[in-house]
Amino acid sequence: MGLLVCGGHVVTDPRRAEAVVEDGAVYVEGTDIVEVGPAATLRSRHPGAEEIGSRQHLVIPGLVNGHHHGSGVTATQLGRVDDALEIWKLGAWGSRRVDPYLNTLYACVRQIASGVTTTLHFNGTEQPEQFEAEALDRLRAYNEAGLRVAFALEARDRHTFVYGDDEAFLRTLPAPLEQQLRSLGLHRYQKPEAYLASVERLHRQFATHPRIRIFLAPYAPQWCTDELLQAMVALARRLGTGMQLHCLETPYQQAFGPRVYGEPVIAHLHRLGLLGPGVSLAHGVWLTPGDLPVLRESGAAIIHNPSSNLRLKSGLAPVLGLLEAGVTVGLGTDGVGLNDDDDLLQDLRLCLNLHREPGLTGRVLSPHQALALATVHSARALGVEHGLLAPGRAADLVLLDLDAVRGVGPEGAVDPVTLLVARGTRAHVSTVVIGGRVVLREGRCLTVDTAALEERIREQLRRPLPPRGRERRAVVEALDPHVRKFFETWGPLPRWPTALEG
Amino acid sequence: MGLLVCGGHVVTDPRRAEAVVEDGAVYVEGTDIVEVGPAATLRSRHPGAEEIGSRQHLVIPGLVNGHHHGSGVTATQLGRVDDALEIWKLGAWGSRRVDPYLNTLYACVRQIASGVTTTLHFNGTEQPEQFEAEALDRLRAYNEAGLRVAFALEARDRHTFVYGDDEAFLRTLPAPLEQQLRSLGLHRYQKPEAYLASVERLHRQFATHPRIRIFLAPYAPQWCTDELLQAMVALARRLGTGMQLHCLETPYQQAFGPRVYGEPVIAHLHRLGLLGPGVSLAHGVWLTPGDLPVLRESGAAIIHNPSSNLRLKSGLAPVLGLLEAGVTVGLGTDGVGLNDDDDLLQDLRLCLNLHREPGLTGRVLSPHQALALATVHSARALGVEHGLLAPGRAADLVLLDLDAVRGVGPEGAVDPVTLLVARGTRAHVSTVVIGGRVVLREGRCLTVDTAALEERIREQLRRPLPPRGRERRAVVEALDPHVRKFFETWGPLPRWPTALEG
Repeated sequence: MGLLVCGGHVVTDPRRAEAVVEDGAVYVEGTDIVEVGPAATLRSRHPGAEEIGSRQHLVIPGLVNGHHHGSGVTATQLGRVDDALEIWKLGAWGSRRVDPYLNTLYACVRQIASGVTTTLHFNGTEQPEQFEAEALDRLRAYNEAGLRVAFALEARDRHTFVYGDDEAFLRTLPAPLEQQLRSLGLHRYQKPEAYLASVERLHRQFATHPRIRIFLAPYAPQWCTDELLQAMVALARRLGTGMQLHCLETPYQQAFGPRVYGEPVIAHLHRLGLLGPGVSLAHGVWLTPGDLPVLRESGAAIIHNPSSNLRLKSGLAPVLGLLEAGVTVGLGTDGVGLNDDDDLLQDLRLCLNLHREPGLTGRVLSPHQALALATVHSARALGVEHGLLAPGRAADLVLLDLDAVRGVGPEGAVDPVTLLVARGTRAHVSTVVIGGRVVLREGRCLTVDTAALEERIREQLRRPLPPRGRERRAVVEALDPHVRKFFETWGPLPRWPTALEG
Repeated sequence: MGLLVCGGHVVTDPRRAEAVVEDGAVYVEGTDIVEVGPAATLRSRHPGAEEIGSRQHLVIPGLVNGHHHGSGVTATQLGRVDDALEIWKLGAWGSRRVDPYLNTLYACVRQIASGVTTTLHFNGTEQPEQFEAEALDRLRAYNEAGLRVAFALEARDRHTFVYGDDEAFLRTLPAPLEQQLRSLGLHRYQKPEAYLASVERLHRQFATHPRIRIFLAPYAPQWCTDELLQAMVALARRLGTGMQLHCLETPYQQAFGPRVYGEPVIAHLHRLGLLGPGVSLAHGVWLTPGDLPVLRESGAAIIHNPSSNLRLKSGLAPVLGLLEAGVTVGLGTDGVGLNDDDDLLQDLRLCLNLHREPGLTGRVLSPHQALALATVHSARALGVEHGLLAPGRAADLVLLDLDAVRGVGPEGAVDPVTLLVARGTRAHVSTVVIGGRVVLREGRCLTVDTAALEERIREQLRRPLPPRGRERRAVVEALDPHVRKFFETWGPLPRWPTALEG
């Protein structure tokens, strides 16, 4: 029994304004799309199909969140205030912990409800000995929720506190703080062999899973030795799988290249053989002009996280320049969306509006380009085959209530993609299908009891912070000025570029 | 019988983090605040008062939208696609018209529902002969909705098509287009004496209205002769009322100063005696460093419209520099909000995030500063006395559902203003009080039947565009390349300032 997904407008390829079927339908059998065409035609050809959607719906390919950390509860909700990454990341050590399975399940629900059908989960852990067990807990959440995931297992082996040697930095601290930090052991790293073995086991275990792919995730160049990076890329190649790393998120990370490598970071990664198709770099805010041809020729992609880059004081990524240079750019929320609600439609709109050069001839993204970034381009950046509605493709699609998006405006005044990109939010997502399965129907998640899940999370968070948590929080606060001092000499920093000051 | 407005947190002065009454209340009699203090105390002192709100509510001063055009139906809904202002404004001539009263009433409802209690309505018209009648229609809407308004009556007397003489420009056009434009008469202007007399009449008529103030509104320096500007400021001074003009919204407007005045625009306005307290300039994106002391010393203010500036390709206003220089900065949506939904809370958050300089020492706005921009600073910019909760002040306040803003996060993890500025949207606005009157209760507008209003607007917009409308639309399209050509020589324009290109 097939599924017939109908809409007043069916956007089959967000890159092309003309790729819209009016009064269209997508016919699905099993996990895949069989046919796309006029609703009337498909209805008569597949009379027994279950029909969902209506003329008031806009059907688009499922959104692909190119960078996320799999946390449904946000840092803000846990009391971490936005700041520059180098300070903000310290806060994680003093933050309340939410059970990994519940937290990931909640991230799934929230992303599904905002129209995301594939996400990249950049999976960190502070507990090396729990690494594989925790990953399995999180993967269980993806399996249950039905969200498609590139699950990228993080590794790091240096520079936990600042962009320099841990031991050297610890020795600069007042003795009591140094002792506290040593006893917390935040700079313990998983052994590379153990990490690589875990990845290989998990990769084997999920090799035939219809929605889960296991990726590798070097935390970032400044947090990984060259040896670790090379071992990781070698394994990724051998397994034929993808890789994502944080890269050039902040101005200090740009400065790291010349200071530590004696060359720009991208040139160094290229020299190590790290860049290639299926490799995506999250952020890329502080790229230099020489980096663009290297990225294009290697086939590596950038995942742009516009909200995160503003909230964490990173800056404006050169998205227009990247696209002009032919580099693949995908879009992500990083779990740090503009409204702190993981709404990729909202961040897609922020992306469109952030990258609008002043004046009549200033470059812009079109609404179709913006939607393409969050679908087919994000998918290509990750090296997965999604983001288009066509026969043989996975049936990952989203129905939006176009009447609600339009409000009192007259029908037909604006093309539906322009309208969606200008006005649509997660509130307009009606129904979501992933791999042929309806996972959200009229705003209600069918795979997870959301209310019960929220109550379980609330209950965990109502418990008082244990003494160990309070101690960690105090250590983080004490550490703050020392981290700032470390980076003081890493200037001068650019001013925020306005007409007045740029 | 008084009104007791209660909240788990009552923010009395958004500028000061400590100005929050926990489990507080505001006691209102008539239109004004009588007392602010602990809820228990006020409850026992005013036992007969009607009580609204609860511990789950955050109470803040009403938001002040410092720049708006009073249109509830947006340009996007009517089919106008975002573009550089100089092109985008042409679209208005080819756009569907919505009845001014209904459109303004809808703008009131939408602003009230997003927590706005005072707005500046920058009131234009294309029909000089209808000027006063149309203004009265719109003022009727404000009176009925109960929204407080600085109603700023626009005048202009030159440069309708481009930033140059109308006749000279018309003569550069192909003869048929020139003829069509002449017959449309878009460059007919109201006679200054008629305009000034209208303003004076309306000012007298509304002199004792509790919520309506009549302002003057020079359309912009490039659209007003010096004579008109001087006549307007003279009348504003004589009437003791405020004035707002568009100013330095785009790079072409910055270039206009040296080209036409032989000096920067701000210096020229200052020379004309235009700048002073109660005078606000909408936008101020393209200010130059020399403008800042002039603004500060004169007491003129800037209304920042972050979404509009991105959507209409204007750029980033130098908000951090303005604040550092001691210039008053208010916040507005311009009716062109980020999500096209007139949500000042959303635009307040965009403002906070747009103005975050990279790096550890980069300047930022605090959440409290951002909320202050949209309340007490906007009010000061307009020269109206609102934006604080204190005895003797007008009872303009907003109750937000803080539990909903917080989501699954634990109570007390983040201070309520930080939480609001990070996560709050119009969806969280529960109840709105203006001048002691409850105008929105639990999300429902009490002064206007919103569903009926929406249906009347929909009905108007369902009618086919009349032939005259289609003709105007064709003329606008034909005009587009000629306007672009005019500005071609006004370069070079800045590139969008990213790390790569800045």
